[in-house]
Amino acid sequence: MALAVSLLWLQPVAADDCLDCHRTATPAAVRQWQGSAHAEKVGCADCHGRDHEAMLAGEAKVTASVCGRCHTEALAEHQSSRHGKGLQSGWGCTRNLSKRPPAECRGCHQEGSSIPTTPVACARFLQQSAEMGSLGCNRCHEVETSCGSCHSNHTTDLAIVRNPNVCAKCHMGPDHPQWEMWQTSQHGTLYQSGGAGLAPSCQSCHLPSGGHNVSKGLTMTPGGEPLPAAEQAIGRQQMLQVCRSCHGEGFSRRELDQADAVRSQSLALVKQAEALIWDLADRGWLDPDPGQRPPHPLKGGVLVTDQQMLYENTSRIEGLFFRLKKYALAQTVKGAYHQNPAYSHWYGNAELKLLLQDIDSEARRLRERAGGAGAVGANSAPKESLVQALERLKKQHQRGGLSDKDYAEEKTRLLEKLPQ
Amino acid sequence: MALAVSLLWLQPVAADDCLDCHRTATPAAVRQWQGSAHAEKVGCADCHGRDHEAMLAGEAKVTASVCGRCHTEALAEHQSSRHGKGLQSGWGCTRNLSKRPPAECRGCHQEGSSIPTTPVACARFLQQSAEMGSLGCNRCHEVETSCGSCHSNHTTDLAIVRNPNVCAKCHMGPDHPQWEMWQTSQHGTLYQSGGAGLAPSCQSCHLPSGGHNVSKGLTMTPGGEPLPAAEQAIGRQQMLQVCRSCHGEGFSRRELDQADAVRSQSLALVKQAEALIWDLADRGWLDPDPGQRPPHPLKGGVLVTDQQMLYENTSRIEGLFFRLKKYALAQTVKGAYHQNPAYSHWYGNAELKLLLQDIDSEARRLRERAGGAGAVGANSAPKESLVQALERLKKQHQRGGLSDKDYAEEKTRLLEKLPQ
Amino acid sequence: MALAVSLLWLQPVAADDCLDCHRTATPAAVRQWQGSAHAEKVGCADCHGRDHEAMLAGEAKVTASVCGRCHTEALAEHQSSRHGKGLQSGWGCTRNLSKRPPAECRGCHQEGSSIPTTPVACARFLQQSAEMGSLGCNRCHEVETSCGSCHSNHTTDLAIVRNPNVCAKCHMGPDHPQWEMWQTSQHGTLYQSGGAGLAPSCQSCHLPSGGHNVSKGLTMTPGGEPLPAAEQAIGRQQMLQVCRSCHGEGFSRRELDQADAVRSQSLALVKQAEALIWDLADRGWLDPDPGQRPPHPLKGGVLVTDQQMLYENTSRIEGLFFRLKKYALAQTVKGAYHQNPAYSHWYGNAELKLLLQDIDSEARRLRERAGGAGAVGANSAPKESLVQALERLKKQHQRGGLSDKDYAEEKTRLLEKLPQ
Repeated sequence: MALAVSLLWLQPVAADDCLDCHRTATPAAVRQWQGSAHAEKVGCADCHGRDHEAMLAGEAKVTASVCGRCHTEALAEHQSSRHGKGLQSGWGCTRNLSKRPPAECRGCHQEGSSIPTTPVACARFLQQSAEMGSLGCNRCHEVETSCGSCHSNHTTDLAIVRNPNVCAKCHMGPDHPQWEMWQTSQHGTLYQSGGAGLAPSCQSCHLPSGGHNVSKGLTMTPGGEPLPAAEQAIGRQQMLQVCRSCHGEGFSRRELDQADAVRSQSLALVKQAEALIWDLADRGWLDPDPGQRPPHPLKGGVLVTDQQMLYENTSRIEGLFFRLKKYALAQTVKGAYHQNPAYSHWYGNAELKLLLQDIDSEARRLRERAGGAGAVGANSAPKESLVQALERLKKQHQRGGLSDKDYAEEKTRLLEKLPQ
Repeated sequence: MALAVSLLWLQPVAADDCLDCHRTATPAAVRQWQGSAHAEKVGCADCHGRDHEAMLAGEAKVTASVCGRCHTEALAEHQSSRHGKGLQSGWGCTRNLSKRPPAECRGCHQEGSSIPTTPVACARFLQQSAEMGSLGCNRCHEVETSCGSCHSNHTTDLAIVRNPNVCAKCHMGPDHPQWEMWQTSQHGTLYQSGGAGLAPSCQSCHLPSGGHNVSKGLTMTPGGEPLPAAEQAIGRQQMLQVCRSCHGEGFSRRELDQADAVRSQSLALVKQAEALIWDLADRGWLDPDPGQRPPHPLKGGVLVTDQQMLYENTSRIEGLFFRLKKYALAQTVKGAYHQNPAYSHWYGNAELKLLLQDIDSEARRLRERAGGAGAVGANSAPKESLVQALERLKKQHQRGGLSDKDYAEEKTRLLEKLPQ
Repeated sequence: MALAVSLLWLQPVAADDCLDCHRTATPAAVRQWQGSAHAEKVGCADCHGRDHEAMLAGEAKVTASVCGRCHTEALAEHQSSRHGKGLQSGWGCTRNLSKRPPAECRGCHQEGSSIPTTPVACARFLQQSAEMGSLGCNRCHEVETSCGSCHSNHTTDLAIVRNPNVCAKCHMGPDHPQWEMWQTSQHGTLYQSGGAGLAPSCQSCHLPSGGHNVSKGLTMTPGGEPLPAAEQAIGRQQMLQVCRSCHGEGFSRRELDQADAVRSQSLALVKQAEALIWDLADRGWLDPDPGQRPPHPLKGGVLVTDQQMLYENTSRIEGLFFRLKKYALAQTVKGAYHQNPAYSHWYGNAELKLLLQDIDSEARRLRERAGGAGAVGANSAPKESLVQALERLKKQHQRGGLSDKDYAEEKTRLLEKLPQ
């Protein structure tokens, strides 16, 4: 309905203007468009416009908003999902494109300045060259602004987007190998042996209604932190409904509850590793110290271990933590929710604990190193002066690592040791 | 035959009692059962019993022994294979289930105690939370007590268990990537291009007769240690017979002999790494020392490097050894027997040697660390007193690392150095 | 044409001589030959000869030159490509075979000596046991001398070699995962969803004409170094022509240009890591020093970081560099050219930068270690005497790490500091 009506305001353009050249200039695009549902009513210029110079420079991409002129509901649903939000970096950063209107900078930056205004700016993206940003980061994050990211650009064949292969392109690799997990899970192996009738694909569970909201049924952030309780309750209910199209209620609940438990147990190990590193930072024992290295693009010369942490220009112990939090935690938790024991246990849990051990070992080395020549045998650290201890507590308090109450108590405890 | 006869003693139960609710309560189960060979004669309660409360709590799982009431030969064959033995931990540990009869504990523990009685108890499993034990360890090890692990629960379609996908679910990942190895081997790529007529699947070689004994043709333990000579000879003969259904005798033997050689060469590198670590342990130079960390669940506060070694609560050098023995060794050896050069060489041999080098580097660091401030430049270690050397030899002898004869000779050699 | 004519000089041999036994001795070979295009005109002995003893010993392999008797053009094209050149080690090294004519040694070695004569001798291969050389290295490098490596041995079904699976067998794994990259790229996922009409396979781009020259369109060495400008220009033109069968000229160029930029940026990071290690080597601070470990098989007791670098018998920092250069660099660069963001960014760029950080950390440790007990806190290194500094510059100059001009200037700068 919405579709039929909105088509009316389109000014039909004879595609023939373009086809004469484009049959040889971009043969696959023409071939695919000709076989598509668009061929009858939607011509080249309807989507691409007529600024041929911009097209040749690769700067006239067809954004989701162009598709949304007709596919209004789909666009709205997409934009309300994580696919439509993301980092808002998908080929939107002018660093990666030339000849873009300066007005575009305001999407992310204060006017006339490079200071970012969006809380979702990605420090790791900011560290990359334009080319790595484009071929690396944006090649997946373009989903935020491009329907073609999943639907591909000129076909309208829904078989493509209903095939789990379409998700593989981005949902793979060390940071979120959902594709690999599904493929070798009970679900995935049965699907591959017996087809969609026997077991679910990615779409069966995450887009059960065939819509565009991929975030239904989720109860955690991409980093594994729990969503607010109310959102969790809604998400859980949505996912249980999905499970219930095959499985019993009790079984479904037990499976998801177990994954919840694995998630919170694994997060606790991450916090343990993080605390070791912050303690070293507070004492000035990281090597090199955050103050002595290229500043973090968003936070400057300080330790960053949250979602904005970098994988470059930090130190070995932070690199181990990056692998633990971004890779091993993700594999454990997502492996648990996707019922893949090789991921939840071996690639996940075992790696998480091995890395925690490596971090502990590096922390011991850094403590002994700070302890100087005298630190032999035992895992000794240099004696901290009262002033140093008070400074360390203050830093910990300032960054929220110590509550007001605990800070006051710790201070009292230290001061009581002074000769009265 | 055995099947037809044993069906007679079943008391047929009208499935309709259950179906009224279960068509909506567990739709996939009903759908799959209706399409199965069981639908005619075997009803819900025949396998699940009638304790609905236990079912709702997830505690009325259909074990292999239930299937074995009819499928007697299959069960016997399964139980005699590694699939039927394993760790005897497959969802059998009451830690992972509630409301189970305490009598079950006796399967693994001394009565009224947590002391394990079975030599196959797995220390790594004992370290896990109930949830990781369930979603991680048991999700694969349930093969030991559940036919559904491979056959899936309500279908009886043999196409599923004849498809190599069914093996992928467990035989993948860093500790034994047989699925990945086969898939990209000459065998696997030809199978995927041209089907079962062109090249073998997992089942073609490991279940050639279509039976349930997956252990036929093996000549080594899961850890890569050679089986006793007599068992090896039988296993080799069985596997050669499999190879011979396509290949010549000489070619088959040469291939397997080469893999044998790779196995024993790789094991020798593992022993070399293990010896470095034991030497550090004997001298008290591990950091942290086994006596100062959470005790091993089966062996207490000592170094453990055998099949019971942990991946947590040890030290960095032991973590490197875990990766070397459980991952790199497995990939080298299993890659060689599965004719996959990327696994036998790159993921296997190269990683094994890189890790051996890392272990050697960490051993050098730990020796210098023990040597204290004086240990500059050279890879020096502190001078060992005669008493210390004798104590170290004694420990080495006690744990079987030094024969009686070698121990006596080493002692004599040391004592001769005393001023006579 | 060439084919039809050259068949005439073959002396037809009745295959029946062989088939009587080989129907049971090598059933798959006979079956596949019978279904092949060869069955009519080319008998067993035409390719295998008649030395049955050599066959039984596995020493009568059918080399590419045998196939080339009929398939002259294909052989010529193969031999001019990287597939036909490679390391010239493919089961050609007599270390891996018995009873070969000593004359064969001359292919790689000075007569009567083990000194290699070919610049492509592979040090890593020389370090392996005969069995690892055979199952590991040669199982892929046999492509250099065996057509069966891709075509398989007795079928002539072109469907096998037109299936991307055939490439997977070798082009996978940490050193060059082109198979994995393609499979999960936009190209690969569309190919798997919609077939060859929708997106390209390996062969579509690398063997577009169906020929045997896999090296067309390349602009870099296997190690990622740019080819000479003239060869680059030809290669780029060839690849653009391939892209142009689907995509527009501008888009294709921009994609390849971006990958070029990623390549040179990544190589710069490799050089940065390499320089850190050479500086340590020049100062004698590697642990262990190259002079104190088993000599490199081609270059002796010196540091080797070029294409001949080993993954064994070096040191931890060199092992990190091996992983950086052979694995992370390859994944970044090949991932960029294959449009796979998970490889170019996560497995590639992120790992490259994490490893660079690990190398920097180990370099700091080695510098402090050399600095001795006094090197506390700061990343200090021992003061270098004037004589030591001059010696270090001389070494750097001798290995080409410092131009004549820079060497002269640095020397002058140092000498000016002397009391005048």
